[in-house]
Order: sequence, then C-alpha cells, then structure tokens
Amino acid sequence: METMIRINMTQLTASSDPVDARYAALGGRGLNAAILTDEVPPTCDPLGPSNKLIFSSGILGGTTAPCSGRLSIGAKSPLTGTIKESNAGGTFAQKLMATGVKALVVEGKAENDAWYVAVITDGEAQLIDASKYRGMNNYQLSDALRADFGEDIGSASIGCAGERGYAASSIQVADMEGHPSRAAGRGGLGAVMGSKGLKAIVIKPGARQQTEYVDKKTFLENSRQYVKALKEHPFTGQGLPALGTPMLVEAMNGMGVLPTRNYKAGSFEHSSAISGEKIAELQGPRGGVMTHKCHSGCIIQCSQIYNDASGEYLTSGFEYETIGLVGANCGLDDIDVVASIDRACDDLGVDTMDTGCALAVAMEAGKAEFGNCNDALALVGEMVEGTPFGRILGNGAAATGKELGVTRVPVVKGQSMAAYDPRALKGTGITYATSPMGADHTAGNTVSCPGDPADKAGKIEDSRNCQIGFTLLDCLGLCLFAGVVMEDPANIQLLANMVGAKIGGEWDIDRLMGIAVNTLSLERRFNLEAGFTEKDDRLPDYFYTEPLEQTGHVFDLADEELRQVLTM
Amino acid sequence: METMIRINMTQLTASSDPVDARYAALGGRGLNAAILTDEVPPTCDPLGPSNKLIFSSGILGGTTAPCSGRLSIGAKSPLTGTIKESNAGGTFAQKLMATGVKALVVEGKAENDAWYVAVITDGEAQLIDASKYRGMNNYQLSDALRADFGEDIGSASIGCAGERGYAASSIQVADMEGHPSRAAGRGGLGAVMGSKGLKAIVIKPGARQQTEYVDKKTFLENSRQYVKALKEHPFTGQGLPALGTPMLVEAMNGMGVLPTRNYKAGSFEHSSAISGEKIAELQGPRGGVMTHKCHSGCIIQCSQIYNDASGEYLTSGFEYETIGLVGANCGLDDIDVVASIDRACDDLGVDTMDTGCALAVAMEAGKAEFGNCNDALALVGEMVEGTPFGRILGNGAAATGKELGVTRVPVVKGQSMAAYDPRALKGTGITYATSPMGADHTAGNTVSCPGDPADKAGKIEDSRNCQIGFTLLDCLGLCLFAGVVMEDPANIQLLANMVGAKIGGEWDIDRLMGIAVNTLSLERRFNLEAGFTEKDDRLPDYFYTEPLEQTGHVFDLADEELRQVLTM
Repeated sequence: METMIRINMTQLTASSDPVDARYAALGGRGLNAAILTDEVPPTCDPLGPSNKLIFSSGILGGTTAPCSGRLSIGAKSPLTGTIKESNAGGTFAQKLMATGVKALVVEGKAENDAWYVAVITDGEAQLIDASKYRGMNNYQLSDALRADFGEDIGSASIGCAGERGYAASSIQVADMEGHPSRAAGRGGLGAVMGSKGLKAIVIKPGARQQTEYVDKKTFLENSRQYVKALKEHPFTGQGLPALGTPMLVEAMNGMGVLPTRNYKAGSFEHSSAISGEKIAELQGPRGGVMTHKCHSGCIIQCSQIYNDASGEYLTSGFEYETIGLVGANCGLDDIDVVASIDRACDDLGVDTMDTGCALAVAMEAGKAEFGNCNDALALVGEMVEGTPFGRILGNGAAATGKELGVTRVPVVKGQSMAAYDPRALKGTGITYATSPMGADHTAGNTVSCPGDPADKAGKIEDSRNCQIGFTLLDCLGLCLFAGVVMEDPANIQLLANMVGAKIGGEWDIDRLMGIAVNTLSLERRFNLEAGFTEKDDRLPDYFYTEPLEQTGHVFDLADEELRQVLTM
Repeated sequence: METMIRINMTQLTASSDPVDARYAALGGRGLNAAILTDEVPPTCDPLGPSNKLIFSSGILGGTTAPCSGRLSIGAKSPLTGTIKESNAGGTFAQKLMATGVKALVVEGKAENDAWYVAVITDGEAQLIDASKYRGMNNYQLSDALRADFGEDIGSASIGCAGERGYAASSIQVADMEGHPSRAAGRGGLGAVMGSKGLKAIVIKPGARQQTEYVDKKTFLENSRQYVKALKEHPFTGQGLPALGTPMLVEAMNGMGVLPTRNYKAGSFEHSSAISGEKIAELQGPRGGVMTHKCHSGCIIQCSQIYNDASGEYLTSGFEYETIGLVGANCGLDDIDVVASIDRACDDLGVDTMDTGCALAVAMEAGKAEFGNCNDALALVGEMVEGTPFGRILGNGAAATGKELGVTRVPVVKGQSMAAYDPRALKGTGITYATSPMGADHTAGNTVSCPGDPADKAGKIEDSRNCQIGFTLLDCLGLCLFAGVVMEDPANIQLLANMVGAKIGGEWDIDRLMGIAVNTLSLERRFNLEAGFTEKDDRLPDYFYTEPLEQTGHVFDLADEELRQVLTM
C-alpha cells in the first residue's frame, strides 16, 4: 500500500495515509500537478502559507526500471509565478519509496521564525527542532545530518540561499556518497521550503516496503529490454558514461549554440579548456571518477566525481548546463574555477543555471569582467555572504537585469534559459517560450532532433513532441536520458508495458502519452488561473532583433506561430 | 493649429506635425492611451526601443479652465509591465501648449550610451548633447538648464535614478520657481526616459500660440462658474489652500486608514508630529509658504514651500502620500526628516510613494529600525549613492520585498499602494486591485465617498465611479482636486459645456464620461495584449487574512466581486 505523507508546518503535525484513489495512477510531475491544481490557489503568494511543496516519485519509482529514481518537486514558483516541477537525481526518491511513501506534501508555514527538520522513519514523519542546523550550507548540513541520523539516510535540504529566500534557490538532494550535489535547481523551490521553515527532510532507512507489481514477470522482461536498448544507444551506452553531460560542450560549440558572453555569440574560442575531454584529462591523475551514478538504479552513470588539483573531492553532478552558463557564457576558461562555482552553488543552494546567467548579466553591466575568474569568484562570494548585491544575484538573472538596467536578459517567465541559444536551436527556443515552466531545457530540448537546428521549419512539431516526451519521463520518474531511445516507438511500447505491468490496465503508446498531455494541460490551467496568457509565451525582444554573432541567426518565430505548439 | 512633436532617439531626429484628426478630440491620459495602443507592441520590453514615452496636455490644456495645467506622461511601465499614465503638475504642460504643441512623443533609443536634451523652441524640437548634464540630480540639473536656457523655461528631467534605470524612478517637472519638485512619480517612467538617452526636455518661451476655442465666450462663462464652485467647496476653498494635502494626515489617522509600520496598523501614535498643522506651525517662523500653486492656472494652491530650520528652501509639493508612506509607514515622527527625504527623492528622481513603501519593507526585514530617522536617511543615502542595496530600494517596494524575502509587500501589479490602507478604505482597495495602472490612488480614490469606508457594501460602485471620474480629469488635463465638485452633476455639465465650447459639438454628461470609459477600455485592452488578466486584479494575500491592528479589518472582497468593477 503506497502512502502519502502530509506535513503541516503551521500546526507542526504530520500524517500518513494511503494514496487517494484519484492519484493512484499518477506519479512525479503529473501527481504534483494534480495536487497543486486541486489544493493550491493559483494566485497565492508563492512564499505564503497557501503554497504547498510536494516531493513525489514517479509512476515507475521504486521499480527495477532503469534510471527510475528521479524526484519531482512541485510548488508554485517564486521565480516564475507559474506552477513548477523541479527534478533531481540522488537517492531521495528511491529511499522514500522504500519506506512505502509515494509522495510528501509540505503545507502551511512555521511561525515565529522557527525552523524544523522532517525525519521520516518507516513511512511516518516527525518534525524536530532545527536550530542547530540553521545557517549551515548544504555540505556542512549534510555531514551534520549524517552524523546525527546515520550515514545511510536520504536527504533533501536547503542552504543559506533557501533560508534567505533567494528566488533562484535550490533544494539539494544527496547522492549515494552523501554529497548534496544533486539539485532541484530550477524555479526557486528552495525559497518555498525556506518560507515554510523546513531546513531539511531526512529519510531514515527502515523496514523496506516491497514494491507492488500487477505483473512483476512482465515488468522485469520489458525493463530488461529497455535496459538493453539504452546500453546499445551510443549516447547513453558510450558518450554519457565516458564524459557525462560535459561531452556536450564541444558538440554544442560546434553547432554554434553554446551561449557565450551573455548570449552574444554561440561559440566560445576556449571551449576545449572547459570540455568533457578536458575534465577527463584532469581527473585521471587527480583520482576523480568519470563514470558515476547518482542513484542505485542508474545504468547510464553520467555523473562524475570532480577532484581538485590536490586530489580532494570538489564536486559531483557537474553538468554541461553549469559549464555552458558559468563557463562560456561568462567567458571563463578555467574549468577548475567553473567547478568550484558549481560546488559553491550546490553548497549555498542556488541554481547554477540562473546563477551563470545572472553573473553574465552583471558582467554585461560592468560589475565584473567577462572572462575574469577572480571577478566571478568574488561575485559568487557575495552571494554566499549575502551582501545586498549577492542577494540580487541569488534572485537570478531576471532580478539582476532589472537591478542593473540591463535589457539583454535571457529569461522567459522570469527563469533563465539553459545553455542553448534559442536563435540557433529554434526548437528548444520554442520550448523556452511556451513551456508552462518558463525557459527550461528539461521541458523539451530538441537538440537531438534531426534537421538544421537554426531553420524554423518543423520545429514547432519537434518542440511539441519533446515537451510531451520529456513530461512523460518526469511523470514516470525516469531520468531524461532514459528517454533517448524513445526515438524508436518499440521502446515507447516497452515503457507502456512496464506501466501496465506495474499498475494494471492495457497501455498503448497513445494512452501512455496521454499521461503527459494531461499533465501539461493541468499545468497550463494552473498558470491560466494564476494570470498567465499566451502573451507570456515569447522570448525577450532582443532575440528577435539582435543577430547571434558569427552566424547571424535571429529567433524568427512570430507569436502566432508559437501558439501552434499549444494545440496538443 | 495644435501640433504633435515626435523625437526619434535612434535616428536623433525630430519632427512637428499637426495633430492627426483621429486624435483631435483626445487629450492627456486618453491621448496617451490611444497612441500607445496604436503604436507600441504591448509585449515589448519597457526599456527597449519599441516603447514610446509621451507627454500630453489635456483636452482643456492651455485654456482658462481652473487647474488645467496637468501633464500626462504615458508609456509601458518598467515597474508594472502595464500601460501607465503618470501625472504631474508644474509648468511644463502649459508652456508646451503655449508653443502650440499638444503632445510630444519620444521614440527609439539612443545608441552608444549617448545622452541628449531635447530643446523645444517655437514648437520645434532639437536634440543637443547632454554630456555636461549627465550624472546630475534634478536640482543641480534644473539650475544648470536655467543657467543655459533661461530662467523662464519649462523642464521635465530625470536624475541619477532614471539614468541608472531604477524601476521606481520619476520624471520631475519644474514648478513656477524652477524647482523640479513636481513628480510624475509612478510607474518608473524616469527609467523609460533614461533608457532612451533623454536627460531632460526644455521648453524655451517663444511666440505664444493663441489657444483656439469654438466658442470662447461660452467657455469663459462655464469656466467662471466652475471656479466659483471650487472656491465655495470647503475642501478646495479652505482646507487645501490652508494646509495642502498634509491636512489629510490627521483626517486619515482618525479614520484608521493611515498606513503605519509597513501596513501593520491604520493609525500612528505620533500623527500630530507629521501633520499639516505641524507643518503650518513650523513654517510660519521659518518663512515657508503654506498656500502655493504649482502652475499659473491653479486656484486651489495646495502646494507649499517647505523651509528647513534655518529658513532655507528645502522642498515643495510635499504631499500627504509622501508623509504617510515615508512618515507613518516607516514609523518616522520627525517631519523635517520626512521633508528632507521628499527633497532627496525629487532630487534623485524616484517616486516618494514606492520609496516609502520600500523603506518600510526594508525595516520589516530588519535592514533598519522602524521610527529610526538616521536609519531611514542612511537607506535613502544608499539610493542616492547607488550602492547595490540602494539600487534595490530604487526599484521599489516589490523588488525590495523580493530581495529580502518579505511577503508583506503592499503592491499590486508591482506598484506600491498609496497612503490608504485598503482594509479600512475598501473602495480605494478595489481601485488598487482593478485599475489598469496597478495600485494607484489617483486612479480612483473613494476617500470622500459617503458611508463606512470599511464596509464593503456599495464600494464596487464607488470605485467604478471614481475610476471613471478620475480618468476623465486626467483626460481633460485637470488637477484631481478640481474634480471634488463633481459630486454635483450640475458641475459635471459645466465641464461638458467647456469641452463643447473648446472643441465643438454637443456634450452632455454621458458623452463626457464616455471619454473616460473609452480610455479605460483602451488601457485594459493594452494590458490584456501585454498578458494581464483578471487574475492580476487582486491584492496581496495578506490583506485578506491579516487583520489591521486596532480595528481588525480585513479586505473581504472575493475575486468574483472585484470583477464586477470591470463591467463599465
């Protein structure tokens, strides 16, 4: 029997009940969307008591499906004002499911500036005083929690950024080594957690709940076939295990979509210095790990452990997006500096992507020099310290642009873009413009679609298909990379078979995709009720008028064209 | 023949043409709304080249109608994202009309960080290099412009706030003494002017254009009767001339609507220390002036000249809103300190209202102490200096709240409320929620409507009527206080008669009110096209749930009730 925990931070109570029948077939992003639509007033203050913060595992969470340990965190976002799903790896979702808990809903808001840690033991939650953890950033906090509750806990926590309410603050999830390096980075959900007075959630291992299957044998057979497909695909079978997502640095640079110096150019003359290949070259002698998984069911292992020059652990989960936006987009060519900023962001608990874009906007305004590592580190230092300007940066690129009077700010609905310039990768640009999440590559990245990425022909359909496909993965609880093989419909049918074998019923591809379409529809309805319209579904003006350096591309999709993506 | 000047800041050109026939019957806020709807893409970046900044006089501008010298400045607002009319007194509109110019439209955006002053001579504009004026605040700038172009110029200018792009920056208009103390304060239009590279507009006196009337005799007769009504009304005939708008301090305190300590309470224990009576008591010995007009056609003279303790000029146009929001709302009980902050805001070029609310939000966050004058002055000093935190404050209350993680932020559509608590003055609260301008008392203040202001019964109608009436005054170019006598329909008919005698045609009250209804409709259409919906028409959550101290009032109008105000 899967359960749902509700923690009320106003009343300081917690309850655990079987998952309501109407939510039984849902999971992850789709479950969050349903609860938020049912229970949260769309016009509410995101940092007020009416907002709810939900941690859900996917429909395939807790199963043997490959890469099925993703965690979907949902709330109304203080960064965008929209509904938000922020997705993380790490061990949290699997450990939650292992205690039989499908989802955890945090409601209300602690009073009198009191802070708590929620401790989950055998499927029951308890709130304990968090005074001793207050003011800790995530690495120190993770160590303290492990000292107090055991090395084998799962944890999701906020650093000082979330305590201070930074609009770009993250929730950090611990990986298998206990490093809080896996970020639910987007949308400022760390500030929502902070607004409720919740410093961390700890899952203590207990009696393991057996995962229930309607037809376990069929499930395992389909799961095995899906694993085989992933192993045979060059991206998930070879590229990602070898270099992780940093393999994309040189690929994106070659495509001319790597944002460089605040989205002025699409390629960076020093790309090789911040590439996956460079990381591999450095990490060999330093004893780093290039093939590393963030949770136990991962067969791709795109993470890495990045050691510093003295061979000490520096960071992990060091992604292409961080390297693109903190590196090329700030003109930084020292990968150790970029890695140390990644570490600082994880520790403080802020999104590396909005931070990278905010730094570049600050550089454009003359607050620092493009390419100057010391300048960049000093700005990050201000974020950590919480100086007035550091707080601005912590509020993300949009706030930084507003503060400094910069109009070249790469955001949609207040959230920064990812490390793909939308002028040269139009399908992803369409996703930025039209996703209910704001600018978000994980909402539908078309980078692997065939055809000229800078030609708008066919890109509406590409974006639509990717938005649906990526949403499906977020509902199933699978890593986005496990979706790479969905280019073959036979593999989609394997997913459908797994869903049927897990929860029952006949599942074909259409019914499976219906999960995603329904979720997108719920999310759009929430945003509509929050006051968003199709007028919000566009890129900032300058992408339409300012040609990308070197290639001269502009974003040439009229608002009317963008609207076609919504007809799904 | 009335003309319209267009200044293109991209091409650095200026042209002057007869007012287009379709705009001939429009003026002020209504003319701005028509031009903005016709020419500005509602989704544009407010600080980008597509936005336009319009300076218009009203339908009765340039006539002998009492108090008809108001200036309407229009643009898409960087503070609210809505269409915006920001209204100012001072001599600018009259001097513009005296050279035959009905409106001035500033388009495009200067390149290469170049700055200009537009000089208008005999109805023609010319751009001159403004390097020497750059970095000046408004008082120094006004002196410099008067030294260079003559004592009798009209001027509208921005200080460093507008140069830096503060989202709450104002455009300051000089009064009859050349003091830049009359603010188009709301909506950050100073940042729009700054974004275009326009530091100031100077009107040099030249050959005076005769005002044209269809029937001058009838006009003068109706105008005389309207003057008589204003003189006989106790508010405009006695109260305002004696104490100016600061007379409202004690009245609003008694009503329990004076925002105190960031809208915690509705009355302030030290109200008498910041009252109109206190100002009169101080200004007698100091040689200040309690009855002072901001432009030559004013018969109410609600302004004053406020001297400091040594008898030197400190500020003028020192309004109730400033005293309420910088004084009571920050807990400050030293009227000289409040006056010096008013002066500093005019000089820097920021809205005193959004500033007062921003300071109080900062105090709530612990950045300063409520009631501590030195703390408040230090924060204003940061705004002037342009420190990172000063820039945040200059971006207004909403940005300050976001920066500091404060959720009790009294804004609607990003603009701060005025010095009337909406829980205890519900009609004005309805206007805050539903006006196309964001929270704005000049969009329809119901404070003089009969009945219990805290009882919601009848307040939808009050707000609707006030929104229409106030919009009419903004279209006519009359001071809002000249509308006080509109409680008697016979006086509205006098206004209709004046319009008919000025521009021709038969005008009854319905046709006259149609000017306002059409304007509101255009403004709502602009906002709709910019992405606003009825979901944006509400107050922040806490006004619905947090009782006002002392009286316990909450804002108890459901969203559905608020929507009724739009059916007009």
